[in-house]
Parts: sequence; C-alpha cells; structure tokens
Amino acid sequence: MTIATDAAYAARLDTQDPLAHFRERFVITDPNLIYMDGNSLGRLPQTTLPLANDILTRQWGSRLIRSWNEEWFTAPERVGAKIARLIGAQPDEVIVADSTSVNLFKLAVAALRFQTGRPRILTDTLNFPSDLYVLQGAVDLLDKGHSLEAIPSPDDIYGPVDALKAQLDERVALLTLSHTVFKSGYTYDMAALTAATHRVGGLVLWDLSHSVGALPIDVGAANVDLAIGCTYKYLNGGPGAPAFLYIRRDLQEQLRNPIAGWMGQKDLFGFGQTYQPAAGLRGWLTGTAPIVSLSLIETGVDLLLEAGLDALRAKSEGQSEYLIALWEAVLEPLGFRLNSPRTARERGSHVSLGHAEGLRIDLTLINDLNVLPDFRAPDTIRLGIAPLYTSFGDIYTTVMRLRQVVVERLYEKYPDETPTVT
Amino acid sequence: MTIATDAAYAARLDTQDPLAHFRERFVITDPNLIYMDGNSLGRLPQTTLPLANDILTRQWGSRLIRSWNEEWFTAPERVGAKIARLIGAQPDEVIVADSTSVNLFKLAVAALRFQTGRPRILTDTLNFPSDLYVLQGAVDLLDKGHSLEAIPSPDDIYGPVDALKAQLDERVALLTLSHTVFKSGYTYDMAALTAATHRVGGLVLWDLSHSVGALPIDVGAANVDLAIGCTYKYLNGGPGAPAFLYIRRDLQEQLRNPIAGWMGQKDLFGFGQTYQPAAGLRGWLTGTAPIVSLSLIETGVDLLLEAGLDALRAKSEGQSEYLIALWEAVLEPLGFRLNSPRTARERGSHVSLGHAEGLRIDLTLINDLNVLPDFRAPDTIRLGIAPLYTSFGDIYTTVMRLRQVVVERLYEKYPDETPTVT
Repeated sequence: MTIATDAAYAARLDTQDPLAHFRERFVITDPNLIYMDGNSLGRLPQTTLPLANDILTRQWGSRLIRSWNEEWFTAPERVGAKIARLIGAQPDEVIVADSTSVNLFKLAVAALRFQTGRPRILTDTLNFPSDLYVLQGAVDLLDKGHSLEAIPSPDDIYGPVDALKAQLDERVALLTLSHTVFKSGYTYDMAALTAATHRVGGLVLWDLSHSVGALPIDVGAANVDLAIGCTYKYLNGGPGAPAFLYIRRDLQEQLRNPIAGWMGQKDLFGFGQTYQPAAGLRGWLTGTAPIVSLSLIETGVDLLLEAGLDALRAKSEGQSEYLIALWEAVLEPLGFRLNSPRTARERGSHVSLGHAEGLRIDLTLINDLNVLPDFRAPDTIRLGIAPLYTSFGDIYTTVMRLRQVVVERLYEKYPDETPTVT
Repeated sequence: MTIATDAAYAARLDTQDPLAHFRERFVITDPNLIYMDGNSLGRLPQTTLPLANDILTRQWGSRLIRSWNEEWFTAPERVGAKIARLIGAQPDEVIVADSTSVNLFKLAVAALRFQTGRPRILTDTLNFPSDLYVLQGAVDLLDKGHSLEAIPSPDDIYGPVDALKAQLDERVALLTLSHTVFKSGYTYDMAALTAATHRVGGLVLWDLSHSVGALPIDVGAANVDLAIGCTYKYLNGGPGAPAFLYIRRDLQEQLRNPIAGWMGQKDLFGFGQTYQPAAGLRGWLTGTAPIVSLSLIETGVDLLLEAGLDALRAKSEGQSEYLIALWEAVLEPLGFRLNSPRTARERGSHVSLGHAEGLRIDLTLINDLNVLPDFRAPDTIRLGIAPLYTSFGDIYTTVMRLRQVVVERLYEKYPDETPTVT
C-alpha cells in the first residue's frame, strides 16, 4: 500500500469513507481522545441512551413484573436472532446468555459428553487464556481422562494451522479456537479447519469474541457446530454485556446443557420438580438474564446491521493496511515490531505493535497524550480498529504520538518497574 | 391480632408506620396500582436513575475502558460487601456474580467434590424447582453416584424439619434448602438446621432469594457454610440483576470453583496459560460481569441498609399479621385458604392464599382491578410484602378487591382453561 505520511492524506481518506457518518451515532464526549480500544470495550451508541431510559422508567419502573411477558422473556432470542445475522446463522441458532466463559463451559462440557470414546481436545497457545482455564476446569470436573492439547504457535502471531491439522484424528472430540486471536489479530480460516475436523468426526467450537461485528462470518456455510462470543467489543453492547452462544440446529437437542436451570425448563410455570429442557436454544438458558445489560446490546447490533458487514470489513481492511503502512514508514525504524499478520485476509480488526519499552510507551499514551490503546504483556500495544467509528485521522494521530513518545523519550518519566495496567 | 376491617384503620396504621416515608424513594408512576409482587421484582428506586445515567454517560460513554480500573473491577466485591451486611456475613464473604442458578451450580458442585465419600444430598420439595434442576444436573454431570433426596413437606406449607433432621447422617455431603420457600413463605430456622447438619459433618447451602432484604439473616452467627441469593426481589436490584454468593472465609480456598474463568484468575493481565485461582472470593468469579445490571443493585441495597432490617422486619411482620387477620375476617368465608404459616416467626415476607378459582381471580386482579400479585400453580395467589414501599392501604385494598372478585363473580369472564400467566 502506497501512502503519504501526512495529516492531509488521512483527512482525505476520511472524506472518501462512505461509513464516516456512523461516528456521529456514538456518544463522543471528548473529541480529542483517540480511542483505539474498541476491541476491549466498544463505544456507547447514541440510541442506547433512550433505550436505557425506556427499560428503566417504563419497563421496570412502570410496567414492573408485567414486562416479563411483554418484553423480557423473549429478549435472549430476540437479540440472539439479530446477532445470528452477523455470523451467518439461522435466527433460532443464536441466543444471548451468561458470560462467554460460562457459555464455553456449557458447550465444551456438552460436546465432550456427547463425543464418547474421544479423549482429545485440541486448541492452540494463541487462544484467549481464560478459554484454556475453562477447558482445564471442565476436563478436571468431568474426570474422564480427557487431554487438553494447546498446539504452540510458531511465532506468537500466526495460528499453527498445519500442526493442528496434523493432530486431527479419530480420538479428537473437539477442536476449539479463537477465530481471531486476541493478541496478534491472526484470523483462522474457519471453513477449512471446520471441514478438516469434521472429516475425523470431531466437533468444532469457535470463540468469535474478537471477530463478531468486525468481519463477515458465515458459520452456516462453514457448517460450524458450536460457537460463543462476547457482545462488549465490536458489538458495542456495553461493559460486560451478556454473551451469546450458537448451536447448529441439529445439535441443539442432541447435546445437553450441563447447567440446568430456571430459564431452560420446558414449562417454567408448571413448577415441576424434574428438569425437562425446553426445545431448541431455550434449553440452553440457565438462570434469569440481567435484563438491563442484555437489552442494551440491541442498539449496537442494529448499527452494525445498518452499516453492513461487507462495507465494515472493507473499511477495516483499508484502515489496518493504512496503519501497517504508517508503521513501516514511521515506527519500524524506531524499534516497533509488527506483531500481527501482514496479509489482510489473515488479520482481524486490530493490529499489535511490540516494542522493548511497550509498557512505558502505553502509559505515556494513556496518561499524557490522550490516546487509549490496549497493552498486552509483555510488550505489545494493541490498536483496535472499530470501523463504525474509528477514523483514518485517529490512526494517523496514534502513529504520530507513538513516534513522539519514542523520539522525545517521553516514556522515561515512567519507572521501569511500573505495574501492569489494563 | 385484633383489627378493624375498614379503610380508616388501614390509613391509621400507615400514619403510625415509621418507615412510610421510604415509599417516596421509589418511582411510582401509577399511584392507583397496587403492587404486591415485590418478591418477584422489586420496584425501581429513585436513586437508580441518576446512577444509571452516570454508568452510561460518564463511566461507559466518557471514561470508556478506563472505568475498568476506576470502578468496574471492584464492583462485584463492593456491592457484595454491602449485601454481606444484610445477611450477617463479613465484607469479604459475599461477592456478586452470575445468576442464582449458576452460583448454586458452582457451590453445590464444589461442596460435593470436597465431601468425598459422602453420596447424599438432602433438600425438600418446597425448594424452588430450579434449585432441584441445578442439583439434578450437577449429580448427573459428576457421575459419582450421588443421591438427591427431596424430603416431602407434610402439607406443602411447612418445611419437613423433623424428617430432614432424621435423615441426617455421616453419608450426607450437603443439605440445601430455600431459607424462605417461594410458595408458602415458610422460613426455616437456619441456625438449628445448620448446627444439626454440622454435627454429622455435612455442609449447608442456603438459598436466600426470598429472605434477603426482607428479614434479618445472620449467616455468621449460624456458622453457615455456603449461601446464594438473587438481587431482584427485596433488594430492588432490577430485572434479572446478577446474583450473589456467600462462602464462609475458611472454605473459600478449600473448595474449588468448577467454572474457572477470566475474572477468577490470580493475575488477569499476566495472561498465563494455566488457571491459578485468585485468593478469596475473587477466585469464585468466572466471566466478565454485566456491569450495568450489576452496578444498579447498589442503590436498592443502600435503601435497605438505611431503613435497617430490624425495623423492616417489624413492619413486615405487622403487615403480614394484618393481612392474615383480614383474610380470616373477610376472605376465609369466601373459600380462600391460608397457604402460609400462621406464626410470624415461621413466615417470610409474603403470604399465599389458595382458592379453587385462583387463576381466574388472579387474572381479574391484574387485568381489571389494577392489583399485581403473583400466581403460583395450581391455585395460589402470592402476595409479596416489600416493607420499604408496601403500605397497609395496599394490603387493605388488595383484600377488598379479592373479596369483590369473588362476591361479584368477576372472575367468570375468564374461561376456565385460561393459560397460566406469570
């Protein structure tokens, strides 16, 4: 990509951006803040505010318990059906429930119990660490001799695709990976790995947390078995908003939810004393959902559907290519390494840059230069591109401030042993 | 209790009520609505509205990801420590997490794994059905031959205390009950049953959902091992607001959280690939909490702490005694049965009335007479007394409208086969 490294060029790219007007649909209280952290917490959509007011004052305050029948019982499916459109699923294949970790526990445990006689679980070392924790806990709890095998990435950037494929055999119960990995942004070819796993009779479970809402996903075309994801990154659902789970329709009643609960019961108000799971995805609910947080997800999803994922992906690719070209021209000579794939097709919507002074540079950006990236130990500054509201100007300014921090040695005001921040 | 059955008497009781002014601290959009459903969904506190505005516009909209360090990481403990004051626990013995069902799953599974060689789980048929579902699922998942024994209530009103005590032996791993049962309002003597269970080496797990915030609880004095509870009833935390769990301090690290996850990891941002639980109750967190719903719990708890549980219990007892006296004078002759204990000490803060036409009466109250009770199959109308805002006038009007529905046979407009409502 040939670019110019001046502000005028970035401004021109913004003028040509057909999605630029979506930025106004978000609450932006400090126009000088450069927010590059959309893949940790998406911004607040403008329409979320009147929705919150309606949920609180009308649904809760005024309609009170009547809102369960009027709005709330169906909210997990209603919001789930919209998320389904973002990932190529059918409306009845996605439901909102619990947290990503609890959903992973439910689906992984169910898959392992279903796959009798298959003791192996394959994943990789790029997976989000807590996905590994959940799996470790599940293996220990099941106590059936499963082995959890995390195949190492060759370089901490690229997924070990060939090594994973080489490990697939008839003893594999489950392959589970982050579709886009949290640190480097490497994005797996979902269809190819799903097909390879199916050839040996394994099930796949994709964690979509870092790709949903950032790039087109088609779990239907790939015939994916199971997936989970969070809603507080590119979906702009709000801090810790409930997660979603996807189960291909034919598996919804073959697999069993290990955490039976109130909302998954067939006849809630029959108050029978024996659990009988509801049909379809309702049977995968457990307790009562946190309705305020759950309902607020919808406005963010609506914005993504309005913009369209193909257009969002085109912008995101253009923006990450631009960022990498700027890195090459401006930052690489200053000791920054590109810790993300070079090829757009293999990259999600964030770009990671390593630097020996990564942590101190990060602190300087946050505290002194009004730029909010993420820091990921030991030395990585992660820049999230949320194409609904990230501008080319944001990217340009971020790169110039990174340059400034190193050239002017601004980071030296922070001690070497500064504790890790989020 | 000697009462008069006229409106003036109810009005005089309200005039004498030292907590009457707390009613103004809630959003009441329809002053003519009689809301007797506080034990399904508590009302919206006035102070929840500015708090919600702060969470959305400042914490999320403006501070963005920085709020994790500024407010959100500690929210589960901060709100938990306030709930601890309602149940007689130490501040570091209660944390807010997940749903009641998921918390029950975590604690029950942990207790069963800890209690090796003890296959029995004791509960009763008055327990909330989904508590039984969770336990059924846990037994099945553990696959270690546990037996779940639900001891029947003699009359569907009183807990089978003697039968439970008779069943306690050295093979009991866990006794788990609803402290106040959801249908009749029967309330167990927590201290006595806990002590009896401890004598045979069993652990106790109390579900406090229908008692927390409605009556003084002292898990510390009773030396309770484990407890769970919801926050959307008498705590007024909002629809489906996250639940809490209590683990006595000495057990917090002896037991193991079976759903290991992101928020329970010792060093979140070390991103180590092996789960190492955080110390204390942090290790019992799993995924990221739904922050908006979680944070909104705090204002409701503050109101309870301000009023004081002894004063609230005194009012609640007076109100349920008044309701029962009115039932005896006005409703019993019309075929209403008292499905709650007659003695205040054995009763929580709701009163259940059975009637052969229960469901049709309930529908008439809701649709035609602006009274909102709960209906619980097959024939029970459940009247929740939330002493922070329920007035004696509310109770008087409810009884008079129940009377009217039967005397004027208003319920006959609803067909016999009307489907169950919530």
